[in-house]
Amino acid sequence: MSSPQPTDLLGEIYAHWIDELGAVPNASTALLRLIFDDWQRATAEPEDVTYRSAQLGGVPGVWAMPLDADPAQVLVLFHGGGFALGSSASHRKLGGHLAKAVGAHCFVADFRRAPEAKFPAQLEDGEAMFQALIAQGHRAEDITLVGDSAGANLAISTTFRLMAAGGPVPRRVVTMSPWLNMENDGETIVTNDATDFLITREGLQGNIDRYIAGATSPTDPWANPLYQDFSGFPRLYICAGDVESLYDDSVRLERLARAAGVDVTFSVGEGMQHVYPFLAGNHPRADEEIRLIADWYRADR
Amino acid sequence: MSSPQPTDLLGEIYAHWIDELGAVPNASTALLRLIFDDWQRATAEPEDVTYRSAQLGGVPGVWAMPLDADPAQVLVLFHGGGFALGSSASHRKLGGHLAKAVGAHCFVADFRRAPEAKFPAQLEDGEAMFQALIAQGHRAEDITLVGDSAGANLAISTTFRLMAAGGPVPRRVVTMSPWLNMENDGETIVTNDATDFLITREGLQGNIDRYIAGATSPTDPWANPLYQDFSGFPRLYICAGDVESLYDDSVRLERLARAAGVDVTFSVGEGMQHVYPFLAGNHPRADEEIRLIADWYRADR
Repeated sequence: MSSPQPTDLLGEIYAHWIDELGAVPNASTALLRLIFDDWQRATAEPEDVTYRSAQLGGVPGVWAMPLDADPAQVLVLFHGGGFALGSSASHRKLGGHLAKAVGAHCFVADFRRAPEAKFPAQLEDGEAMFQALIAQGHRAEDITLVGDSAGANLAISTTFRLMAAGGPVPRRVVTMSPWLNMENDGETIVTNDATDFLITREGLQGNIDRYIAGATSPTDPWANPLYQDFSGFPRLYICAGDVESLYDDSVRLERLARAAGVDVTFSVGEGMQHVYPFLAGNHPRADEEIRLIADWYRADR
Repeated sequence: MSSPQPTDLLGEIYAHWIDELGAVPNASTALLRLIFDDWQRATAEPEDVTYRSAQLGGVPGVWAMPLDADPAQVLVLFHGGGFALGSSASHRKLGGHLAKAVGAHCFVADFRRAPEAKFPAQLEDGEAMFQALIAQGHRAEDITLVGDSAGANLAISTTFRLMAAGGPVPRRVVTMSPWLNMENDGETIVTNDATDFLITREGLQGNIDRYIAGATSPTDPWANPLYQDFSGFPRLYICAGDVESLYDDSVRLERLARAAGVDVTFSVGEGMQHVYPFLAGNHPRADEEIRLIADWYRADR
């Protein structure tokens, strides 16, 4: 039986990274960061969007500002990359596509990364950004937290911290291929191993260690939202590819949220790779997902 | 005596790359490309600029379109990276800053790279882009070719090819830290070795080999403009840092062009690193250089 081969640009990019990393067995976190910024290559430039390097609540990042957006509406995008990799450079265009589709400004955040900053520094950055928006006069109901992969974990966990603080809470949370399971024992890590061109259990463990080793346990609900009680959680959007190693995390997240009475939507990208909305402008299924997110967003505006 | 240390973000980025590459002695061209896309990190987002992924004369790239620019005025930016590395991703923001300063649209070209495409494929791409602009109705006097490092070689050589063809020729050529000497024997490669945090003679030779080995000789005037006759060459702008390994190339280019009666301007960035305009938005000397280029550009509009 022959191995599955990438069928789209994102799969090609992932296979290319793994190929290059094969020649660098002990790649430094710094080198991994340089490689993962190549994520940007999957995404076409969204047209009619301008950008500004800025800080929000002390967190650096890039504002993506579609020309015809309502600046009162704000997305805060927590990039993926295992809490340690990824940046506003890898995610700028993705943030631009999402912002344009929903008609908002999007802050693509360069939160502090692991291992230099361990859990819960990323959540403190998340809270600081949200509070800065409130302080600037934004209404909580105009704020949506968005995250992909580890960034989805951060978007969810930041929301729980805001809920626990008893103050305002974002109106919506959008998660793309969320990575939540810090115990690293999801079934699809094994069953989808051959069809996921990026994720391996070893790679995940390296990121878990960078994020929480010595800081907290893999079952801490503030690091692993699969241990949270989702009662009262905001409207939640989930999308993930069914051939992903992390598909289990989305399935469990939906089940948990639904059982707790959350208004949850789960969109499955058949045969699509990890964080397939990265293919915006380059693949019809990614463009469709961005439209679905926008429809869902507008349904309660 | 202690070694010089980086004093700005660009120097830090270069030192960081060299540091990471120290652990990967036989880095592949593919890995070098991933690393060099990190050039983008030196540059702040230029505000009020939109982008579009596109092709020009069959060459892929990104249009940087400042909101208030005159779309009749066009820059074509040939990125640096030794003919083999660099991309529209590394140079998008730099192209945006230049476009905004001069009030033009800028095409940041992903010309074919070495070694997959050897000399003179890059010059064919350059000609194809220029001819496509003419075919679209742009006037030659509204077109400026821009390049940094190896991209400056391509901007100059493309212009010579257009001159030789006897048709329209770009109005101006802007070169930032031009790399022209394919014989790899510039004096400042030695005398500025300690103060240039990126360039080494070995690295240059690798790029020379990728570009011309088996295709032409290092003294071919179409690959090495220091062997060209600059009579009749368009208005020429040169900037370079005086602590650069490639500073000699700029000095020789200015001398050659001036001797041939070219309208040439040479701006020296004291203590600045290779292609210091990358620091636009992050360093006053880079911002000043962008302004100087804009003043020079507007002087004959």
